[in-house]
Amino acid sequence: MEISITQKIRRPTLILDEDQARKNLRHMLEKAKSQSISFRPHFKTHQSLEIGEWFREEGVDRAAVSSVSMAEYFSIGDWKDITIAFPVNLREMDKVCVLARKIELGVLVESLESAAFLKEALDSDINVWIKIDTGLHRTGILWNDQSSILELATHIADSKRLNFTGILTHAGQTYDAKTTDGIRDLYSESNTRMNDVRDYLESAGFQGLKISVGDTPGCWLSENLGDVDEIRPGNFLFFDAMMEELGVCRRSDIAVNVACPVVAKHQERLEVVVYGGGIHLSKQAIHTAERDIYGYICMPGVGEFPRYLSKENYVSALSQEHGVVKLERNEFDTLHVGDTIYIQPVHSCLVVDLLGDYLTQDGRIIRSMNSERIKNLQW
Amino acid sequence: MEISITQKIRRPTLILDEDQARKNLRHMLEKAKSQSISFRPHFKTHQSLEIGEWFREEGVDRAAVSSVSMAEYFSIGDWKDITIAFPVNLREMDKVCVLARKIELGVLVESLESAAFLKEALDSDINVWIKIDTGLHRTGILWNDQSSILELATHIADSKRLNFTGILTHAGQTYDAKTTDGIRDLYSESNTRMNDVRDYLESAGFQGLKISVGDTPGCWLSENLGDVDEIRPGNFLFFDAMMEELGVCRRSDIAVNVACPVVAKHQERLEVVVYGGGIHLSKQAIHTAERDIYGYICMPGVGEFPRYLSKENYVSALSQEHGVVKLERNEFDTLHVGDTIYIQPVHSCLVVDLLGDYLTQDGRIIRSMNSERIKNLQW
Repeated sequence: MEISITQKIRRPTLILDEDQARKNLRHMLEKAKSQSISFRPHFKTHQSLEIGEWFREEGVDRAAVSSVSMAEYFSIGDWKDITIAFPVNLREMDKVCVLARKIELGVLVESLESAAFLKEALDSDINVWIKIDTGLHRTGILWNDQSSILELATHIADSKRLNFTGILTHAGQTYDAKTTDGIRDLYSESNTRMNDVRDYLESAGFQGLKISVGDTPGCWLSENLGDVDEIRPGNFLFFDAMMEELGVCRRSDIAVNVACPVVAKHQERLEVVVYGGGIHLSKQAIHTAERDIYGYICMPGVGEFPRYLSKENYVSALSQEHGVVKLERNEFDTLHVGDTIYIQPVHSCLVVDLLGDYLTQDGRIIRSMNSERIKNLQW
Repeated sequence: MEISITQKIRRPTLILDEDQARKNLRHMLEKAKSQSISFRPHFKTHQSLEIGEWFREEGVDRAAVSSVSMAEYFSIGDWKDITIAFPVNLREMDKVCVLARKIELGVLVESLESAAFLKEALDSDINVWIKIDTGLHRTGILWNDQSSILELATHIADSKRLNFTGILTHAGQTYDAKTTDGIRDLYSESNTRMNDVRDYLESAGFQGLKISVGDTPGCWLSENLGDVDEIRPGNFLFFDAMMEELGVCRRSDIAVNVACPVVAKHQERLEVVVYGGGIHLSKQAIHTAERDIYGYICMPGVGEFPRYLSKENYVSALSQEHGVVKLERNEFDTLHVGDTIYIQPVHSCLVVDLLGDYLTQDGRIIRSMNSERIKNLQW
């Protein structure tokens, strides 16, 4: 990061290391390619047409998104193959229909009601994935609930509009693994369960079904992506403190920082207060036995190498616009009110959603879906 | 809330009970008035020019805000007396200078560096408050650090541009009180400490200093607002689940709900999944011994009376766009995919910041500073 950028920071600002993000992108893509697995990156992480182009430059032509609005946004940017990786929202069916006419649209279904509603509402074809729960227990039909899955599959296959494409899961249970081996094991277990589902669907006569999976920890750490057809990771593009904490990435792999001005120093507690609170960093925390952590600190360095402070330097509390940063004495002593520090966020996807715009190392502004929110990137 | 509004909900939508908010407003204002204390409500809670007018209709002519951007926004709405209740951000000094020329602007200072910087930069007068820490330990000079406070006061008084107005605190420690009596005690203790500071500043020759305080729990619950000149509460306007949990308000005093479409049902766990996640509700939780709670549930009722479900019905987890809602069996059974439920948010200020627009019971859209972010309120 160049000092000249840091000097221009006025408000909490999302700094993007474009080179690192592109490096992360290529690494994930190459792994998928080398195993002949389709790569459908989750664009909820960056929410930006411009960053979407980086994927297109590498030959990626499909994406996953997490809302109908996001599908609309990317379809305007000429993405023609989008899966809305969220249980289909019946209250936005008019928009789903418009999108289905325009692009190759995929949706997730996990209930007979939703399938029936889709059938009734659609006037063009749509790709339907049955959402499977392989252990996260957030959404989806439990992988071993054969009767429900078969009933829904039959219901879907019964409609001409609904193109039964396959089964899809998000094995987010990997985020709760205690070790990197644990992550690999959960990823592999989830894939085994997905193959079980495909097997009994095939036995029942449903042929050619695809398996789509896609958590960043599992996809990044597992050398062998397994017997799946498509991966949909998103977070790997930027990573974050949570991923580093899980052992998925190194701190230097994290491609986004939030630059925050220092507004107060408190010698007696070795704390600085920054302009940068819950509305900028999100209230997502890493919980350890001793403390809650809302971000790690690095200092804008000369050239492209930021200086990573030890984990004893961290964001310890957030209110609406304030961030409290605990520092080691030597770091505390060199900082002044009016300086800028960089915070490695706990969850990059949430921070991107909150801050809207990116500022690259070379001072370029990159817009996202939420750009209108941010008024500070106007120099 | 009228059923007609609920039927139109398509995405997570902030529903505002205007009558309740105005009632909360009048209650707080009346208390301040009856004790001849100036009322400077904190507008970070609503961030809306239109809602600001509700205050103006009641005779309120001053406000507190939490950022320079927010001061700019309200100054455009012709608010002429604004305190930026956040340590002055030296990196936005140009904007502070423009505002100071235009309106009666107050800023907080807690260090000699900031005071010196202000002195140098300003070309018009500004009201300066010394930020005092009476026990929250977030920002401010500790109330009993007489030498630092006197030194800073001398420094401020030494400048013609800096109008030394008084001392200001946010006794947010009341949020950690275990009982409502505990809240009253902490509020009262904070005020005693503020009066101690004023006393020793007066002894040193600083006359006519005001005391500004302002946490919602203390101001709402304390019959006697104490020996202070100004209160700056904000949250009381809408309240939220956190305030109810603290015993500050009743659930029926909460004036904002987040309406969320149900997208999935899971019988085996008695959970529904709603479209409404961390980017809509914020990741702020109420932590109890048994669980984390991200909101309580009420159902849109006929007429203006929502039906409050017991606290066994609550948001148990949030990811980016998903909310997981635990329900009692009878409530679970009556809900369908495609229905809308109302969530009483944990922290209304954060939710307002995230959702940007309000929808009133009579179907009117109220805009805020962040309106551009929201694209769903367009019917």
